Amino acid sequence: MHTRVGILGAGPAGLVLSLLLAEQGIESVIVETRTREEIERTIRAGVLEQGTVDLLVRHGVGDRALAQGARHDGVELRFGGAPHRIDFAGLVGRSVWLYPQHEVLKDLIAARCAASADIRFGCSEVELSGIGGDRPAIAFTGADGVREELVCAVVAGCDGSNGISRRSIPGSARTEHFRAYPFGWFGILAEAPPSSDELVYTHSERGFALISTRSPQVQRMYFQCAPEEDADSWSDARIWDELQARVAGGGFSLQEGAIFQKGVIPMRSFVCEPMRYGRLFLAGDAAHVVPPTGAKGLNLAVADVAVLSRALAEYFSTGSEAGLDAYSATALRRVWRAQHFSWWMTSMLHTPPDASPFDVQRQLGELDMVTGSRAGSAYLAEAYTGWPLEE
Amino acid sequence: MHTRVGILGAGPAGLVLSLLLAEQGIESVIVETRTREEIERTIRAGVLEQGTVDLLVRHGVGDRALAQGARHDGVELRFGGAPHRIDFAGLVGRSVWLYPQHEVLKDLIAARCAASADIRFGCSEVELSGIGGDRPAIAFTGADGVREELVCAVVAGCDGSNGISRRSIPGSARTEHFRAYPFGWFGILAEAPPSSDELVYTHSERGFALISTRSPQVQRMYFQCAPEEDADSWSDARIWDELQARVAGGGFSLQEGAIFQKGVIPMRSFVCEPMRYGRLFLAGDAAHVVPPTGAKGLNLAVADVAVLSRALAEYFSTGSEAGLDAYSATALRRVWRAQHFSWWMTSMLHTPPDASPFDVQRQLGELDMVTGSRAGSAYLAEAYTGWPLEE
Repeated sequence: MHTRVGILGAGPAGLVLSLLLAEQGIESVIVETRTREEIERTIRAGVLEQGTVDLLVRHGVGDRALAQGARHDGVELRFGGAPHRIDFAGLVGRSVWLYPQHEVLKDLIAARCAASADIRFGCSEVELSGIGGDRPAIAFTGADGVREELVCAVVAGCDGSNGISRRSIPGSARTEHFRAYPFGWFGILAEAPPSSDELVYTHSERGFALISTRSPQVQRMYFQCAPEEDADSWSDARIWDELQARVAGGGFSLQEGAIFQKGVIPMRSFVCEPMRYGRLFLAGDAAHVVPPTGAKGLNLAVADVAVLSRALAEYFSTGSEAGLDAYSATALRRVWRAQHFSWWMTSMLHTPPDASPFDVQRQLGELDMVTGSRAGSAYLAEAYTGWPLEE
Repeated sequence: MHTRVGILGAGPAGLVLSLLLAEQGIESVIVETRTREEIERTIRAGVLEQGTVDLLVRHGVGDRALAQGARHDGVELRFGGAPHRIDFAGLVGRSVWLYPQHEVLKDLIAARCAASADIRFGCSEVELSGIGGDRPAIAFTGADGVREELVCAVVAGCDGSNGISRRSIPGSARTEHFRAYPFGWFGILAEAPPSSDELVYTHSERGFALISTRSPQVQRMYFQCAPEEDADSWSDARIWDELQARVAGGGFSLQEGAIFQKGVIPMRSFVCEPMRYGRLFLAGDAAHVVPPTGAKGLNLAVADVAVLSRALAEYFSTGSEAGLDAYSATALRRVWRAQHFSWWMTSMLHTPPDASPFDVQRQLGELDMVTGSRAGSAYLAEAYTGWPLEE
């Protein structure tokens, strides 16, 4: 079996790449180990940048995001017990959308399936070979148990941080940057009405908290905890007490309700450089992971494949490899900006375990500088809502 | 001997306070341990914020700063071997002036002496008492050997980070925040023509460097070093090699010349909270020290006494202590912003001894974000040129 672009992984990067390539008349095949049901059932948060929504809409897969997602024209930075709004729309004329990642995936899968795209769900024993030469191949056992080999002109590694793509690059040909943060996020889902119209990023003496929303009936909240915190040892009452204490001030309090999911997520940064080896091009989590504070994960994946699809279109239409040769550097420039932004939001709002009173007062000085300055607020707003996509 | 405001220290804070009070008809006496010649001979760098220059001009002591200082409408952030200008004037309509601190002090001393201000230079055995009551007093032995006691309504502690003012506050009534940075600045003065029209703040793989200027014939340069670096062990040739390596790129190089002064300065942050105890009010370095990266030291001293002089004028004219009661919180808000800004400039541009490649790439991502964004550049520009003074 042959195809032009073999895509490993049916996550945001792989599905959007498949869509963008198809519109340029470039054939691709996606090989995915999970079933369609698994992908669509794995609930993941999602903050979509303006540019991500615009791209989905432009390519015909944004209707439901617009209709069912919630446009947010700002966020609240809460510190010293008081709210400080960052007015995205007023400052930079852009917004973000709250629309869960698995809903984006449902929309993309539905659209690609309707277009008879070749997506192989539920594959096993996936192997990648020949990426250093000009006939890279993906071998896999399909959901039907049949072993196949897919010979490609190019392979796109969109199989996430634990996928085989990155590990197929010889260790000597890649540099991996890793940073672990000395805390995690304790996340809950609760049956309760929203406590705020917009996301609330809270700095407090007890540490960071984030008040988010899933729907009018279901709320998503997080608070900074030790990385090894045991979620099961926390009663609902203790969780609510902790959250209420962190956001307290000026009469503000959270609407409480039954907590039906809780867990601790790690905070880490990862980048693999370069994002290319021979005929293999990495995109999305396969190449980089950001802490969730900057809400950049899905958006970076989309930004990567916007660049990659343009380079591939150039290559297949003209034979020029200029775009492919520039892909890694172009994508990494945005990746390192996003890593910085994610680190910045994290370090500005979280209390490190070894924080001195100086550090905490300096954070408050920074929050005062950012929120007290139109330029500072706009700088944050343009990063949060997303830099222009290079599609 | 009695006065309304006893001022400890004839540095920027003490002299500007004396000037501002005199214009409100409020008598003061300055007690200083150094001689006038020592003060005027101690060469210190100086970057004056727009607001500091405006204040000096408004109060009749800015003529020489305007005539002999150099207005800088921007600075260069140099990274990845390439220059990136921050256009202060274009971004925020403000500038800074390079005019050495000892020249500011000469101007202030000349003006105060011409107005017959009571400044006691060369005092010894200075003691402060009664600051918790309503008759604080400064005892001192004058340059003439005569012991005197100055009874005041209020004492302004403007005697620097090692002065007696702060230490006169009971330890239980003050919180001291200290942060040492894991590097120092190796500074040189060289007989050479300028290498750049504007200051150059350089991020490089070898660490930070700052290219500044003193005059058309004398240049001031610094580079990040270990805090315990022995300046004497560095030959001129080695110093120039290090500086050239840090700023290299795009054909840029430094004009070299004879190095006639060299030394290592520490990098530290310090804040004492609150800045008041009873009838004692701290201002300038007596209350806070910033690393030199943000060029905020002298400007913070001026900002402090602008607030304090207004509060004292209110107090002596109406008896209201509202301004005095608000002094510490008002001044500290700017202090913590300045501490953050100084930390930010330092952490964005210096390479910590334990920096990982991730950290360095993140710094470059940040520098790319700041210089690539009008809002980010304006945020830096407004902090560097200085927030409005609350005079």
